[in-house]
Order: sequence, then C-alpha cells, then structure tokens
Amino acid sequence: MGSSFGKLFTISSFGESHGGGVGVIIDGCPPRLELDINEIQNDLNRRRPGQSKITTPRNESDEVEILSGLLGNKTLGTPIAMVVRNKDHRPKDYSEIKKTFRPSHADATYQKKYGIQASSGGGRASARETIGRVAAGSVAKQLLNKSAKTEILAWVKRIHDIEAEIHPSEVTFDEIEKNIVRCPNQSAADLMIQRVEAFGKEGDSCGGVIECVVRNPPIGIGMPVFDKLEADLAKALMSLPATKGFEVGSGFGGTYLKGSEHNDPFLPSDSNQLKTATNNSGGIQGGISNGEDIVLRVGFKPTATIRKSQKTIDEDGNAITLKATGRHDPCVLPRAVPMVEAMVALVLADHLLRQRGQCPD
Amino acid sequence: MGSSFGKLFTISSFGESHGGGVGVIIDGCPPRLELDINEIQNDLNRRRPGQSKITTPRNESDEVEILSGLLGNKTLGTPIAMVVRNKDHRPKDYSEIKKTFRPSHADATYQKKYGIQASSGGGRASARETIGRVAAGSVAKQLLNKSAKTEILAWVKRIHDIEAEIHPSEVTFDEIEKNIVRCPNQSAADLMIQRVEAFGKEGDSCGGVIECVVRNPPIGIGMPVFDKLEADLAKALMSLPATKGFEVGSGFGGTYLKGSEHNDPFLPSDSNQLKTATNNSGGIQGGISNGEDIVLRVGFKPTATIRKSQKTIDEDGNAITLKATGRHDPCVLPRAVPMVEAMVALVLADHLLRQRGQCPD
Amino acid sequence: MGSSFGKLFTISSFGESHGGGVGVIIDGCPPRLELDINEIQNDLNRRRPGQSKITTPRNESDEVEILSGLLGNKTLGTPIAMVVRNKDHRPKDYSEIKKTFRPSHADATYQKKYGIQASSGGGRASARETIGRVAAGSVAKQLLNKSAKTEILAWVKRIHDIEAEIHPSEVTFDEIEKNIVRCPNQSAADLMIQRVEAFGKEGDSCGGVIECVVRNPPIGIGMPVFDKLEADLAKALMSLPATKGFEVGSGFGGTYLKGSEHNDPFLPSDSNQLKTATNNSGGIQGGISNGEDIVLRVGFKPTATIRKSQKTIDEDGNAITLKATGRHDPCVLPRAVPMVEAMVALVLADHLLRQRGQCPD
Amino acid sequence: MGSSFGKLFTISSFGESHGGGVGVIIDGCPPRLELDINEIQNDLNRRRPGQSKITTPRNESDEVEILSGLLGNKTLGTPIAMVVRNKDHRPKDYSEIKKTFRPSHADATYQKKYGIQASSGGGRASARETIGRVAAGSVAKQLLNKSAKTEILAWVKRIHDIEAEIHPSEVTFDEIEKNIVRCPNQSAADLMIQRVEAFGKEGDSCGGVIECVVRNPPIGIGMPVFDKLEADLAKALMSLPATKGFEVGSGFGGTYLKGSEHNDPFLPSDSNQLKTATNNSGGIQGGISNGEDIVLRVGFKPTATIRKSQKTIDEDGNAITLKATGRHDPCVLPRAVPMVEAMVALVLADHLLRQRGQCPD
Repeated sequence: MGSSFGKLFTISSFGESHGGGVGVIIDGCPPRLELDINEIQNDLNRRRPGQSKITTPRNESDEVEILSGLLGNKTLGTPIAMVVRNKDHRPKDYSEIKKTFRPSHADATYQKKYGIQASSGGGRASARETIGRVAAGSVAKQLLNKSAKTEILAWVKRIHDIEAEIHPSEVTFDEIEKNIVRCPNQSAADLMIQRVEAFGKEGDSCGGVIECVVRNPPIGIGMPVFDKLEADLAKALMSLPATKGFEVGSGFGGTYLKGSEHNDPFLPSDSNQLKTATNNSGGIQGGISNGEDIVLRVGFKPTATIRKSQKTIDEDGNAITLKATGRHDPCVLPRAVPMVEAMVALVLADHLLRQRGQCPD
Repeated sequence: MGSSFGKLFTISSFGESHGGGVGVIIDGCPPRLELDINEIQNDLNRRRPGQSKITTPRNESDEVEILSGLLGNKTLGTPIAMVVRNKDHRPKDYSEIKKTFRPSHADATYQKKYGIQASSGGGRASARETIGRVAAGSVAKQLLNKSAKTEILAWVKRIHDIEAEIHPSEVTFDEIEKNIVRCPNQSAADLMIQRVEAFGKEGDSCGGVIECVVRNPPIGIGMPVFDKLEADLAKALMSLPATKGFEVGSGFGGTYLKGSEHNDPFLPSDSNQLKTATNNSGGIQGGISNGEDIVLRVGFKPTATIRKSQKTIDEDGNAITLKATGRHDPCVLPRAVPMVEAMVALVLADHLLRQRGQCPD
Repeated sequence: MGSSFGKLFTISSFGESHGGGVGVIIDGCPPRLELDINEIQNDLNRRRPGQSKITTPRNESDEVEILSGLLGNKTLGTPIAMVVRNKDHRPKDYSEIKKTFRPSHADATYQKKYGIQASSGGGRASARETIGRVAAGSVAKQLLNKSAKTEILAWVKRIHDIEAEIHPSEVTFDEIEKNIVRCPNQSAADLMIQRVEAFGKEGDSCGGVIECVVRNPPIGIGMPVFDKLEADLAKALMSLPATKGFEVGSGFGGTYLKGSEHNDPFLPSDSNQLKTATNNSGGIQGGISNGEDIVLRVGFKPTATIRKSQKTIDEDGNAITLKATGRHDPCVLPRAVPMVEAMVALVLADHLLRQRGQCPD
Repeated sequence: MGSSFGKLFTISSFGESHGGGVGVIIDGCPPRLELDINEIQNDLNRRRPGQSKITTPRNESDEVEILSGLLGNKTLGTPIAMVVRNKDHRPKDYSEIKKTFRPSHADATYQKKYGIQASSGGGRASARETIGRVAAGSVAKQLLNKSAKTEILAWVKRIHDIEAEIHPSEVTFDEIEKNIVRCPNQSAADLMIQRVEAFGKEGDSCGGVIECVVRNPPIGIGMPVFDKLEADLAKALMSLPATKGFEVGSGFGGTYLKGSEHNDPFLPSDSNQLKTATNNSGGIQGGISNGEDIVLRVGFKPTATIRKSQKTIDEDGNAITLKATGRHDPCVLPRAVPMVEAMVALVLADHLLRQRGQCPD
C-alpha cells in the first residue's frame, strides 16, 4: 500500500533499487495530449546519478521505455506505463550494510514493519524509487503547460547555511540549469558547490532547502477542507525521501507578522482574474488557487549515508560500528530539483482534472 | 469533493458556518471500542469559541449528538455520525462583508471556483468546519489509547515572536490546560496572553506555532513512497485553516546540520523495540514509525479577519474599504490545539488499521 | 467501512434501523444546481413503509432535513447532508428475535464479523439504510436531468411467477405509479397485488424482478477495464438488500444467441450520435455508454422475515424455533423501485463527472 | 481512469493489445508470502490464445516477468509488478477493421469517449488486457490458500444451450482441466466442443455461463451497505469483457421461491462456525460471508468478432459491410475460466485484508 498518488491523474509506482526495474503507471491522463518523449527523458537525466562531480558516481543511464497508452506520441486516455530497467546492480558494494540498521535509514523500520526487506540497496526506500515520480511528473508538466500555460520551476535555495537570494517570479529554467547545483544565483551556487565537495571529501553530507514557483497556475483548483491545494502539495513533497519541512507562501516567517501586515489586499481589476498587492498567501486562499504565483519551499535533511564511521546496531540489537563504502550523494538537493517539480506538477494536474469533474465551466 | 479523509479510518465532514449544522461520519472505526462520550464533548469544548477572554466572544455551546454507530457506549463497527447544530446564526454581523472579497479569506477563490457561495460567515471555509475533525479525532485518540497506550499532546509553542522553551517528552495535559493560551510554560504563557490581548485591542491579529508530540506511537505504521507517515501528517495539518508550514523532527533547523550530526544512532537493546540516541528523525524513518516520540510543528498565520480597515475589492472588481465588525479571534492558536491533536490522531488511527490490514501480526 | 459509494459524486451513508436517525452526505455535487426538494421527499415517500396495503404497516413519515450544502435551493458545491430521524422505534416487537440468528438475515454474519450488533431491528442491515441512497439518488437524478435530459425509470417486471410484458422504451412514470405494486402493466399488476396479499396472509413472502431503463444517457461515460459502466451498475444494484442477480441488455437470455444474432449493427447516420438497429448491448459497449437506452434487470429474493415458524439457532448455537411477530413486507419490490432508480442515478452521475474530469469536451 | 481495482489488495493494470506489453502492479500484498511463480504462469497458460483447437489460433506464449516486490520467491510487502511483452503483433490482420465501427465492439464508444483510439486490435478493450487480472488473481489465490485454505474453482456450466449438470461442492480442478472446454462433466463437454467447432466453421460464435465455487472462504468478510461481498463480486465479474449477467446463490431462479422455501435454516452446532441446511444464500448473508460455499454464475455473450459479413458504419457514419478476417475465438468461455477465478480471488483477498484492518481478531 501507499504506492499510488492522485485521485483522477493517478500514478502507481513500483520497483526496488535492485531487481528488474522501476516504473510507474499513469491512469487518467486526458486523451489526445501530444507528448514530447524527450522531455520525459530530459527530466530523468536531471534526476539521474552520475550527472556531475557533486552527485554519486554511480552511473545509471535510466532510459525510459513507454509500454502503453500512446498512439505515436499522442495519449490514448488509457494507462501510460513507463519502465526503467535496473542496470548497475553491483550488490557487492552494499553487502556489508546488509544486516545492519544504518542510522536514519529505513532499514530498521522496514524490518519491523514487514519482517523482511530487500537484500540490498534500500529497496523501496531507495531514491531510485523517484524515477517513476519524475517520469510521471514530466507528463503532468506537459499537460499543465498545454492546458493553462502553467510553468513549474524549482531550484536550490539553500545548501547547509549558504542561502541564495532569488526572486521566484523572475527565475528562468536556463538560469537553474546553468550550474550543477541548480541554484539560479551563480555566486551562491559557486559557494554551494565548494561546500558540497568539501563535505564529500570529509565523508560527510549536508542538506538544505529547495524552492519552487508555479506561474500561471489554473485558477480555482484545490478543494475545501481536507484536499486543500497546500495540503496535497505538503503531502506530495513530504513524501519525497529526506524531507523534514514544508512551507507555502510566507511560511514559518509569515507567522511572525500581524494580520494587517500579512493580509494580501485585492487590487481593483476589470478582468475576471484576481490580483493581490502582496502574495503572502503563496497563490492559495482557503485551499484554492487564486491565480497568483504558487510559491513553496521544502527542507531536506543531510543524506543519511555517510562514509564517516558511525555507531549502530545489527538486526539482532548488537552494537556495531558502520563505515559505509558505497557510492552516495553528499547532498541530494541538486538531483531533488526535478523531483520537487514532478510532485508539484502531479498535484496540480490532479486538481485541474478534479476541478473539471466538479465544475466543468 | 475533498471533505473526506483517511483510507480505513475514514471521516466525511459536512456543514457550513451557517445552516442546519455541522458534523462528521466516521466509517471504519473498529467494533467493541468503549467510547467516553464526555471526552468527545470535552475536546469540542476546548475548540469552541467564547471559551476565554482571548477567543472570539461568539458563544456557541457546540453540543454533539451521536446519531448512529453505538450500542450504549460501544462502537458497532458501523458508521458513527455526529452532529452539532448551528445555534448562534446572527447573520447580521456578517452582512456588510457579504459581497466583499475579504483579504486573505476564501471569499474570492470560492466565488471563482464555484460561481456561488454561502451567504455569510465563510461557509465551508469557516473554522466552524473543524468541529467534525475534533469530534472524530477524539474517537481516534481513544482508539489509539486503547490499542497502544498512545498519547497525543499539542500545545502553543510560539505566538508572534514569543517562543516558549518546552520539552516535548515531558509535557503533561494538565500543564497545557492550566492557562487559556494552552502553552505549558507559564511565564511564556503570561506574555502570550498579554500579546494577544494587545493585538485584539488594536483590532489586529497574530499567528505562531503549535507543537505536538505522540508518545508510544504504534511501531511500524506508515507506508513507503507516497503514504509516508510524515506525508500524511503534513497533509492532515496543512488542511487546517490558516496553516503556512509543517515540520517533523529536526525540521527546517535540521537542514543546517551535517549528516554525522543529524543521524540518529541506534542503541543496543535486548528488546524487540528500536531505541535511538537522538531523535532528529522525529520518530519516523523511511516514512514508518520507529517507536520513538513523533514530534512535529505547525505554523499558523495571523487571523485574516481584523477590525482594522483594509483596502480590497467587491465581487465586481471595484475598490472598497473594508472594516469588519464581526466577533473574531485575534489569535486562533489556543483553539487550534485540539484541532492539531485531532488531525494527528486521525492519521495515526488510519495507519494503525492499514498496518493491521497488510501486516496483521 | 463500505458505507461510501462513488468516486466524484460520492455518497457516505450512516444509521441503524434504531437510533437517532439515518442519512447521507453527498460530496461532489456540482455547484449551482437548482434542486427541487419536494422531489427528494417524493422519492422517499415512494420508498417508505406503510404506503399501501401490500407493504409493512409500520408507519414512518421519513421526513428529510437538509443540513448543509445549499443556498436557498441551489447547491453550493459543498457536501449536502440529509438526515431522517428515526421515529417509530417500537423495539418491543423485535425483542424476541434479539438473540436469535434469523434464517437468511444478517444477524449471524454481523455477529461473526463484529462480535457485537445493534440490539434490534437489523441495525445497519435493515432496509431503513436505503433512505440515504434514495435521497442522494434523487439529487443525482435531478443532476442528470438538468445536464443531459436523462430519464431513469424502474418498475416491477415480475413478482413470484407473474411476469408482465413491458416495453422499456415506452413506459411512463405515471403508468408505474398508477398502482401500488409499481408495475406499468395493469392486468399483471392486479395479479401481482393478489399474489402478494395471499402470501402475506399465509405469513410467507415472495420476490421477483425489477427492470430499469435509462433514456438519453450521457454518451461516452463508463471506463475501460474495471470501472465499466455495467460493472459499476452491477455493484450498485447488488449492494441493495435482498438482491440475487443482475443483468444488462440481453442478459442471461442473450447467452443463448449466436454472435450473428446478438451483435447490434450500427445504423448509418449524419449526426454525431451512434444508433444501433437492435440493443442487445443494453446501451453499453466496451463498458462505455453508446447513447442507446440502458436497460437492466435485478432479481430480488423473497423477504427473509416471515411469520411462519422456522427452525434456527440462537447466538450460542442452540436449536430454536422462531416465529416472527414484527411488521414486515411480504414483498420488497414495490418499495425497491425507487432504490433501483437511485442506485442507477448515482452510478451515472458519478461517471458523468468522471468523464468531464478526464475528457472535458 | 478505471484501471485499478481493490482497496487494500489493489491492482493497477496497463497495456493495449498492441504496443510494448501488458501488465499489472499489485500493491498491498502482505509480506513474507511464499509465491509459486509457476502457478502464475500456469494460470496465464490457461488463459492464453492458441491453447486448443477451439480457441483462436493466435499463438502467444505470454511469459510473465516479475520486475519487483520479491526477495527470491517471497513477497516484500511492496508493489509486485508483472509484465508480459506483446510478441505477435501482426497488425496487418486488423488493418481492414481499422476505421470501421465493428458491431458490439468498443470501437465506436472509445472513439466517442476519447476522440482517439489504438490503431488496431481493440486496444484497451481487447481481451489481452485480462493478462494482468489473471496474473494478479493467481497471487490472490495463493494468498487465500495460505491464509485460509480457500479454494476457488470455476468451470463452464453452459455453452449455447448445452447445460451441464454439475455439483459445485464436489468439482475438482483436474476434472475441469481434463477437457479443452473446461467443463467437468465429460459428456456435456463433448457436446460443447462439437458445438463450438460447428459455430467456428460457420464463422459464427456463441456464449454461455461460467459457474464458480469458493470453498473454505474466510468467514465474516464483506462489508455492510455498498461494499457487500456480492456487490464487489458482481462488479469484478461484470468488468470482464463480454459479460451480460451475474447471479449469486439461488440467483434469478431463487426469485421464484417463497420465503419459507428460500430461507436457509441455521443448524445447531458446537463449533464457532455457522452451518446452514440449504445454501440459497450462496455463502453470503447481509453482504458478509457465513463460511458456506460461495457459489456464483456469470453469463457471457457470444464473441462479437465473427467471420460472417455484417452491416455497420465507418467512423464517418457511412454504411459499410464488414467481413472480419482476423483470428478470433468462436467462444470465449474456456479461456474465461481462469479470468473468473482471478476476479473472485481478487475480491476475496481484498476483503480478507479489509476485515483484518477493521476487525483484527
């Protein structure tokens, strides 16, 4: 259970880090959507390991194969199944951590929950699981773009204590992709890259914050009460591995303001659009999008796998000293940027369809 | 859509702020659970307006009536329907804000979404909607307590910039309930009460942070991938009105640490339980509870309704100056404490049943 | 669990035969639908006991109260909660069957499943539960009628071995309601009424078949694979109490035909509509409506409660002779007609919204 | 939408008749279940075309590959993905029926619904879609057998007007598999095979009835109201291609009985089991299994694809005469036997887990 997401634009994900492969089925994508398959592969390439000197050197090409749901490059309205084969097994690297509960990993909790777990590599808790999310999210991005010219961009806002000043309303995709850390402020990016490399050399790791903007979101999507847009976004993003916090609009910072400071005055307008003087709401009011930019941030903890030796226990509760030797990311954030975009896109696509279902005009 | 929550312990909520009443159906509560009905009413009393000088003076007794699902005070396993009648309509107070889009309220987005809205009082976006959550959450708390001696406590951690030092592992219910602001640190509480009163006099409002601990959570609950425990908690809490941020365990603060600082070493143990030296994970690893305390925090923005005059627009886009005269809370946090407990309880109860469903031993 | 139905037009039902009341929440009804509340009450009146000499003499007025979701008589797009109070408890009538497992009732299975059950009257298995279905179905019928001029009519086709010849494409509501058995063939109806009265006097009961037609169904609704329109109709109708069989179009009779006899040739047409020479498909092909009349039939077993003495057991497995004295229907079919219409309407309304959600044009 | 089934034992299916392949993900299978992979392949072999002289000569080996969810042959509790590649495309056979609306096929309704469809072979409406059902159903059968020694057997009860006398409580798997028509009454089977061959030679087709028994079903599974066991079985079976009717226990025949004839008296017993003197209920009372054999029947219409020439229209509404030349089954029933078993197993497995989730003892 727990491997499906979305009510109308529904994805079902499968696959362990080792085994035949990982993948996803999208059920509910509208018909006659012209897909750019290259964009899907590009998003997977932005996610894949081995893409730069600050990611894990594991080299997986992660080529996607689409098994169903298309006529040429047009969607049929039926399930779109996408599979990426696991190529670079190398289970030997993971052998020593096989029976050990690695600190702050899922080894121990999976064992308590299921009484069994994948022999190596993190199984279902491996970041490799996110391949399905990114592939499906890429389709969702294309749907949103075709339907409402919606644009979703995420970037690295902070790594460790290096925070970049960035204006969400102005960031471009090219600025983000210009450097390997995916921070559209080049001077901050340079410092971030140095910091990640330094931690990598120490055998340590670091975390930070990813920020995301949605421009031209569909207006009026999101539901009252439980399925508020920010609630579904929070779930989507807190379901990514290594996340510790989520905020939307003014976020935790906004909780220091007075009501008179925080409220977003509506501006007079001839059009049918809503326009606010400020955007502390982050584009969402009462759980429903108002058409302003949706802005959110996600906190990622430092990667749990480090080369430094650590005290822990084995399956039987015995004390053990662990020194991991596998190839891991000293910082997940650059690779997590397309994951954040994907999850945001999946939520918006789902709510776009839900809005059409209940309020078709 | 959007008024149901939970997969096995499912609640369906209904009701506007004005109209016949508000309520909730719980479907999936296990049979033969002995309910203390008084506890449900007590939780509603902690939520109700008019309970102290720092909440809205609207006085609603919010008496719950249980229509189904019980034999005496024992659950039948069938849907438990609970209704609270709306008594204190007073629609006249709201008359002037009828056709105005109040800043940072849901008036405008509801209108854009539905093309119609409740005549007054916020309709479905009113905090009155949370009555159903609190009543259902009270049942969930009792289920968890009977099943696993689980205890869920929330309190006000910060109001505006007054932050209380509190040790989640030691807080008691009585300490929380000792003062009207529900902060178990009395000296901080005194300052908070003054601050809220001061803002109330100004016709302004403030926000802050609520913290919550779960002691003795069921071990092994939560699902891989999308239905991670922290993901469902994030959704549950970000679905509460006025929330802007969520964090679990070390939260955003933890993103400043190195992996070697953040990882929680497992401690050797004879028992079948897991025990960690630190708890940056906040009791959840890989989306699954490890048995340590679950700790989380939720940021609430300042109440949108203020008496100070504000610039905004009417339904037709014309500029308007708004000065609300209704009776409102200058700070929602004291009343939101039982809401946070309720949402946490609903997530845990649901995942407890899901765990039994998939892994019954 | 199990008390909700529908994915986008979702209903959640509650209530035992005895207790505070029964009711339903509709979540997902589109906004701005003008409801005729009288029609809802009329459908409930067609369902209620005591309406004629061939139904149980229990006299329950079953007045519906709508607690939420409306502005005047227009839907808000938010949950519509409807409650009917239980008035005529009379638990004494049921006292003797309290601890007895009545043959072919749900007493025994509820006890095995839940280890507890409602003290009297069938609890959740009572036909009283269908009040929520009929009220919600009445809203669904109005939605379908406003959206697509869809008309849904059900009638009694057979009681015991008295089968009426009826042309589904020509039946009118008035013909159905002209007699108390709801069979639009008056001479057959007369025989049916006699038969039911005769069985009633014997203390026995009988079953039969209800037929239903949907005229002007929305075209293109229904989903491939699992959520085929006939599959969801089958589930909906087989969820009614006392049903033993379901068939659509040619049904079991059609399985005696050859392909060349059974296939429905498409007729040439200028319009964008589909038209077939015959309608063995019953308006559904590949799980999707083709615009022809949807025709289906449901078999109801004879009422399980009879006055004749029967051998059975008590809770402890001891042999017992049971002679029921409560007031029961010798034949449920006349009262089941609005239930069948309601379930069909709920399925169609749900699929109409699903179609809009995935294929909005 | 519509390609997932089940709430806790959930399957998601994908794939058109032509394209990369077809398959299924099972999400929610309990961990540590030892799977016999050969049994899965065996069930697929019972379903595959080309298995005998009375099925289509299309020869597809339908070899299943399991991509995830297993450690050796033990389930991990995570999604089990199974894929069967499409090998025998031969799109040319289907070329002439490409733009034609074949009578009583899904061509026309898919086109109306989606405005696009798979270029050939029926796409998602092809019986090839059932591969995923059969593979997943095989896993469900193994789960039920390990958990409760449950045995599920289906067989051909009638073809055209040749009906076999069969005692559901006594049928064995070997008797069913002894002949190519899968009817465990050899003399009836011989007649059926002749009949199918005769229709095949004529270029025509026929339908019939499949019967199914569940022995040792888990007791107490099934839910009140909407998710009654018979309702979910009805949906499951009416979602199979070509089905026109469903009945459980006494079925339509039972509607001719009086209550005193139809009721199943409970027999005195020392054990905690329920035992009834007759089984008109078909093992289900009030929607919940009572432990007696579950017996049901499904009616299949004659195969829509025939070689005889037929009048129909093309996409543009023009009259056309169609004479199909593809390789098709003159009768689907022998191959549908494992499909029926699979769907029944999927419903029971799902309800077994739901029962554990709500009532864990």
